[in-house]
Amino acid sequence: MTEAVSTARRSRITPEREAELYEAVLDLLREVGYDALTMDAVAARTRSSKATLYRQWGGKAQLVVKALRHSKRVRTEDIDTGSLRGDLHAIVSLEDDCTMERNSALMRGVAMAMHHNDDLRVAFRDQMVDPEMGGFRQVLQRAVDRGEVRPDCPAIEFLLHMMVGGFATRALLDDQPPTRAFLTSYIDAVVLPALGVQTD
Amino acid sequence: MTEAVSTARRSRITPEREAELYEAVLDLLREVGYDALTMDAVAARTRSSKATLYRQWGGKAQLVVKALRHSKRVRTEDIDTGSLRGDLHAIVSLEDDCTMERNSALMRGVAMAMHHNDDLRVAFRDQMVDPEMGGFRQVLQRAVDRGEVRPDCPAIEFLLHMMVGGFATRALLDDQPPTRAFLTSYIDAVVLPALGVQTD
Repeated sequence: MTEAVSTARRSRITPEREAELYEAVLDLLREVGYDALTMDAVAARTRSSKATLYRQWGGKAQLVVKALRHSKRVRTEDIDTGSLRGDLHAIVSLEDDCTMERNSALMRGVAMAMHHNDDLRVAFRDQMVDPEMGGFRQVLQRAVDRGEVRPDCPAIEFLLHMMVGGFATRALLDDQPPTRAFLTSYIDAVVLPALGVQTD
Repeated sequence: MTEAVSTARRSRITPEREAELYEAVLDLLREVGYDALTMDAVAARTRSSKATLYRQWGGKAQLVVKALRHSKRVRTEDIDTGSLRGDLHAIVSLEDDCTMERNSALMRGVAMAMHHNDDLRVAFRDQMVDPEMGGFRQVLQRAVDRGEVRPDCPAIEFLLHMMVGGFATRALLDDQPPTRAFLTSYIDAVVLPALGVQTD
């Protein structure tokens, strides 16, 4: 309660306004890419002052990463279907294929920009990779507790690498966007066997 | 023989000169990136005429991809240690960690440029992905013939995704270049178990 009040006082931005602003940032990102995106353009598009944007988010990298994170509606750790296979399938089924294709293009663009933007790389690690690692760790811990995965299974530390690898290499190697059908086959063929989970 | 003669006649470029030219292209690529690389710069750096470059390679995308491919000294299909584990470890041990870090940065830059350059994407698929897929298929076929991998193992079609995924996500998720130590652990923890190969 105290935290909510203090955030409101600091920001004077309603959750609706914040969501609207993040949506505009993602639209701009799709239109011009990270490098060409300016805080001026965000300010103009959202009818905000640049001062407000900087005060609220600190900078372009933080704003973009917050906007990306906001577009994830469900937190990975909240997915709990009762089996690891069910959880991983659910994780890649949160978006329909069309949304996944749009987001895959967006993430590719951002991953590329990270290559030469240190502040974006740091913000991405803090706001996206670390929370996602934490979420996957919880999903895995429940699988270990259920006896599905051995606690000393060496693939445990590579779960996020496997999941992101399937997502990222689909476009790179097959020139096709990742789809639910591709990702669920990949999970069944690669991720679960690597973790020692029986799939048939 | 006939092919070698006709290539020589068409190109009038010796293998030494070709290697020197590819090296210069990779240097330029590291210095300025794909988008800023011009055929003028390649011509100046290598003291060639632009006409020769275009006649020989057709264009920037083809020249860059040929240069990348040329930097691979050993073909994947020629690696044959007698076991799949030996072959995969050998594949990630062709370069020392320092060279691998340099090449990883280079490949990230090219992967990034593929995002918005259709001709680069097509050249990359034809000259890099397809031959590499073929090479891995031969390595796997020998493992199947030795009885190490079941011919109907569903992970077979994802071998390149797994290998490239490990390589690419290391930088993205851990902000560290891929090293031999990382890739061999990843192969032992993920790739071989997914293919049903016993590692202990």
